[in-house]
Amino acid sequence: MKQLLASTAAGLMALGLASSALAADLSPEEQIEIRQAGYEFMGWNMGKIKANLEGNYNAAQVESAANAIAAIANSGMGALYGPGTDKAVGDMKTRVKPEFFENMDDVKKIAGEFVEAANALAEVAAEGEAEAVKAAFADVGAACKACHQKYRAN
Amino acid sequence: MKQLLASTAAGLMALGLASSALAADLSPEEQIEIRQAGYEFMGWNMGKIKANLEGNYNAAQVESAANAIAAIANSGMGALYGPGTDKAVGDMKTRVKPEFFENMDDVKKIAGEFVEAANALAEVAAEGEAEAVKAAFADVGAACKACHQKYRAN
Repeated sequence: MKQLLASTAAGLMALGLASSALAADLSPEEQIEIRQAGYEFMGWNMGKIKANLEGNYNAAQVESAANAIAAIANSGMGALYGPGTDKAVGDMKTRVKPEFFENMDDVKKIAGEFVEAANALAEVAAEGEAEAVKAAFADVGAACKACHQKYRAN
Repeated sequence: MKQLLASTAAGLMALGLASSALAADLSPEEQIEIRQAGYEFMGWNMGKIKANLEGNYNAAQVESAANAIAAIANSGMGALYGPGTDKAVGDMKTRVKPEFFENMDDVKKIAGEFVEAANALAEVAAEGEAEAVKAAFADVGAACKACHQKYRAN
């Protein structure tokens, strides 16, 4: 915990993202690499859901993709934004803007909305109705975009 | 589907990993990148569970970590081993051995055991008993290792 900036820690704890076993043993480089892995894997699963909505709808594939997105969203990725992860480290680049670390209340709000949207998508995906998934999928996309537009450089 | 080698496709379909919306639009480089992202993110969550078992046990953190591992394990990563992903592509390296693609029945069996172990870990993690989690965690570790030893270069 002591490795986290106080303001960041407060924001993360409010989200239930912090604990003694967090990023304590991870270098800034590792934290950036792992959070990018999480976003990349969610992106793949978003792509699969999109393809299903635009083509033949495979309910089982959509359900597993939505579960992966929700589980990653709920895994406490806030812990991967520790000190030193606000800019490139070694060969590891990051597109996060400095504003991310300066607006933790807003980040917390946006992250909470994303988690809610991801959970809602997983719920409707389990029911197998493509139209409901389409709406919930759009909500997740909007929640992703809300953070990207404010806190991710192009 | 037609982009997949027949033998690989048969193995993946038996695992329920194949569908029309699979890796069709992903380059070999993207497939390698995404599968590595999945393993990396699972590795982070394995590390969190390990830290919890060795230190203060936070049941909520262990549960969310186990859910992330299980959801990723169930997301159909077999689709990320399409043609051309058996060796480095551009700057994207891979440690997968050629034997992986030559023993799809065995890979299918090992992958199935990994998914089962990950699901079992998620189940016991939800119950919050550290001792049960410890045993299920060891099973997941063994399932990871079973593949690494045979099909991953050092």
